[in-house]
Amino acid sequence: MPPTPSAQFSLDLRVELGRDPDSLARLTAALEEAGGVVAGGEVVEPGDAATVRSLIVQAGDRPTMEAVARAAGAVDGATLLEALDRTLELHRGGKIYTGLVTALDTRDDLSMAYTPGVARVCLDIAAEPELAREFTIRSNTVAVVSDGSAVLGLGDIGPYAAMPVMEGKCMLFKEFAGINAFPICLDSKDPDEIVAAVRLMAPTFGGINLEDISSPRCFEIEARLQEALDVPVFHDDQHGTAIVVLAALLNACRLTGRRLEDLRAVMVGAGAAGVAVAKILSGAGVRSLVACDRTGAISTLRPDYEDGTMNTAKTWLAEHTNRELRAGSPAEMLEGADLLIGLSGPGIVRARDLERMNPDPFVFAMANPDPEVRPEEALPHVAVMATGRSDFPNQINNVLAFPGIFRGALDVRATAITEEMKIAAAQGIASVIGPDELSPEYIVPSVFDRGVSPAVAAAVAREAERDGVATSEFSAVTL
Amino acid sequence: MPPTPSAQFSLDLRVELGRDPDSLARLTAALEEAGGVVAGGEVVEPGDAATVRSLIVQAGDRPTMEAVARAAGAVDGATLLEALDRTLELHRGGKIYTGLVTALDTRDDLSMAYTPGVARVCLDIAAEPELAREFTIRSNTVAVVSDGSAVLGLGDIGPYAAMPVMEGKCMLFKEFAGINAFPICLDSKDPDEIVAAVRLMAPTFGGINLEDISSPRCFEIEARLQEALDVPVFHDDQHGTAIVVLAALLNACRLTGRRLEDLRAVMVGAGAAGVAVAKILSGAGVRSLVACDRTGAISTLRPDYEDGTMNTAKTWLAEHTNRELRAGSPAEMLEGADLLIGLSGPGIVRARDLERMNPDPFVFAMANPDPEVRPEEALPHVAVMATGRSDFPNQINNVLAFPGIFRGALDVRATAITEEMKIAAAQGIASVIGPDELSPEYIVPSVFDRGVSPAVAAAVAREAERDGVATSEFSAVTL
Repeated sequence: MPPTPSAQFSLDLRVELGRDPDSLARLTAALEEAGGVVAGGEVVEPGDAATVRSLIVQAGDRPTMEAVARAAGAVDGATLLEALDRTLELHRGGKIYTGLVTALDTRDDLSMAYTPGVARVCLDIAAEPELAREFTIRSNTVAVVSDGSAVLGLGDIGPYAAMPVMEGKCMLFKEFAGINAFPICLDSKDPDEIVAAVRLMAPTFGGINLEDISSPRCFEIEARLQEALDVPVFHDDQHGTAIVVLAALLNACRLTGRRLEDLRAVMVGAGAAGVAVAKILSGAGVRSLVACDRTGAISTLRPDYEDGTMNTAKTWLAEHTNRELRAGSPAEMLEGADLLIGLSGPGIVRARDLERMNPDPFVFAMANPDPEVRPEEALPHVAVMATGRSDFPNQINNVLAFPGIFRGALDVRATAITEEMKIAAAQGIASVIGPDELSPEYIVPSVFDRGVSPAVAAAVAREAERDGVATSEFSAVTL
Repeated sequence: MPPTPSAQFSLDLRVELGRDPDSLARLTAALEEAGGVVAGGEVVEPGDAATVRSLIVQAGDRPTMEAVARAAGAVDGATLLEALDRTLELHRGGKIYTGLVTALDTRDDLSMAYTPGVARVCLDIAAEPELAREFTIRSNTVAVVSDGSAVLGLGDIGPYAAMPVMEGKCMLFKEFAGINAFPICLDSKDPDEIVAAVRLMAPTFGGINLEDISSPRCFEIEARLQEALDVPVFHDDQHGTAIVVLAALLNACRLTGRRLEDLRAVMVGAGAAGVAVAKILSGAGVRSLVACDRTGAISTLRPDYEDGTMNTAKTWLAEHTNRELRAGSPAEMLEGADLLIGLSGPGIVRARDLERMNPDPFVFAMANPDPEVRPEEALPHVAVMATGRSDFPNQINNVLAFPGIFRGALDVRATAITEEMKIAAAQGIASVIGPDELSPEYIVPSVFDRGVSPAVAAAVAREAERDGVATSEFSAVTL
């Protein structure tokens, strides 16, 4: 069965239809026969002899798109003029632009925004560089930096191919937090070169969002940059995920009257995001966490730890989780667990393994597009289920975290994002759902909930002040 | 006498005026007494007992601004609530922003612009990296890169203080050529570090505009980057100036019926821009050029050339100009010259030295804010005069060149900007003024002439095709 038709695989067909009144019906039937779903349409060019129509047709995958286009070309009385891939067309020329805050229509405009008036502002900043955070875009601009080494589920596709993702990320920064974000894709995989380049361009930016950089380099790059710079450095793949996991967990506990301290947690998947999840859960009060890879529980007793072949992320997990030094398969670890966090892929646990868990467990199966356990199979066994997908309830999506976190950090000109600020961000996300609204299907707010980013920003800014990393007073920015 | 009041030194005074109908008149009189010129005003908050007014007051310099604000505070019946520096306020938060080309309002929007749909575009680019110039911002985005080492006339003010200038430059790119430009201010003066950083971030950009980088590092940085990258690299301080000088010269020749080949040219000022001017003039046909510094004509016979103490720019000029090996002061070099190009500062030549020139000479005195020779003193001796200032006719302003040059280069995805493309750009600028419009006061178009950038772009794109550096066909972009 081909996948469900959706917007991402949609076509804009430009078709000329003759006078035969049945030609549109024949066309529509042919498109649906080929696997397409007609999602909209309009007359583009009316005419006496023929009419040009645009038809928006969704397909489920690329082969179906091609079949749909072929079908449109074969209908009697219809001439296919153009078959546009809507996702590709949306990307043509890029998805973000730069604009002017003030007009440049007159010589007076020029004399204030550029020479000679600009010189006065330059001299003020030269005398007091901190003013760059007030009178330049540094006040509200974040770099989205990637080397393209671990993009989505696509892996190492390089800096050119990573651009569309980074541009998309920049759109989200703007849309949800009013932050000017700009993609910087770096043509190097060498941590020294990446750190040097980002360090050099720091005068332009009020924050650095690292994105899709593979492990273990992501750890070193983030740590070295945060050490070198006086603006926040944040690897979203790690911390964004961790924050939203914690937010979901906080609300699952609120809903079921449990405490983080009492939970026994199992995590499958032991990459960079796993390390960040382990850190934030521990910081928030979770005492018992066992991390597993496909071969089983990770601990300092494992042969690969002892012989030094364990990678950076797993080594960290071995040294900081699983204090009871448990050993065994992921399924065995579920015995007596209250929470399963999936950051791996499908097949690592089975739905029936969930029966081993304590009553009314939480399962956050975030592998994308295929969760570790399918919700329809897991649901009979769980109290609360969350996934990484938008078509199930409780989507764990980083978009809930990073815009508000940088908004809050920029609002107080924070010099870093502390672990406490990350926990505050999770509390901010969780707080958006009121006590009366909480339900097993609603522990995570919608990515389109406009209340999330301001709540996160305020929580993060206040925590930054408490942590001593704020360098100016918080006042909420009106978006 | 304090300088003429202007917008760049203007204040927005917020003043509360009581019921006394004369208080506004007293206020205005006091402001003008203090040296201000009231350029506008409006009621901000009407009221029965008191009215809050905004008054826009221009001053000639900062001390006068302060005097004006003090005066406003001392007027009987008026309370000064706020005195805003309009230039500074215009810079608050930065002068450019990033925006979304397409909306992100629905899950369908998200699924096309971001995950999961974006993955398909990423894979297309991974298979064919050149597609990044079609489906990402690389298609229409230029980096404005500076290390802040030679900013305007301010010198080495560093990367933070350089930001307002670079942001202003980005505004001009957008306003006059529809190009998304983004400032990158680099915290290093080391050419190796600068080259490495820019080379790494190249996947984001379709062109690199180097700006305000001091000599001689600017030569090396530009050359090494152009060698390393497949997009145009252009140091505007050099080539932008050179192109507009040539444009002015082409029109001065058209106006007076002379040929470049017959001109004897003298240049005072021997920095990086001087080298670029010498190159472009030579490329365009000028055979006789003597470059001078304050000590006189530069040649290979000079002691500082012979003992190796001459700097990079002057050494190049010594080796490539002044074939007759003339020696003497700048004034002496003017003997029998047809063209004086000033890229230095006031005082290096006197108005009466111009009498030594051939009849009806051209004088382009571009030192800013004070030209080498003041126009009112020079005019009796010259056929055509140009300066760098907007308040005299014929302003030599780079804004006439760089937007159109990058527009043309991006339109054909040029891999470099050749010397021939620079000459074509100058011809494009010159061509905007029709034969009937040419006059001694109008050899250079206005910076606000919207015809300039498209003319330059078309000329540059066509020349790129001829030179073999275009990688796609030219079709004019509608701005």
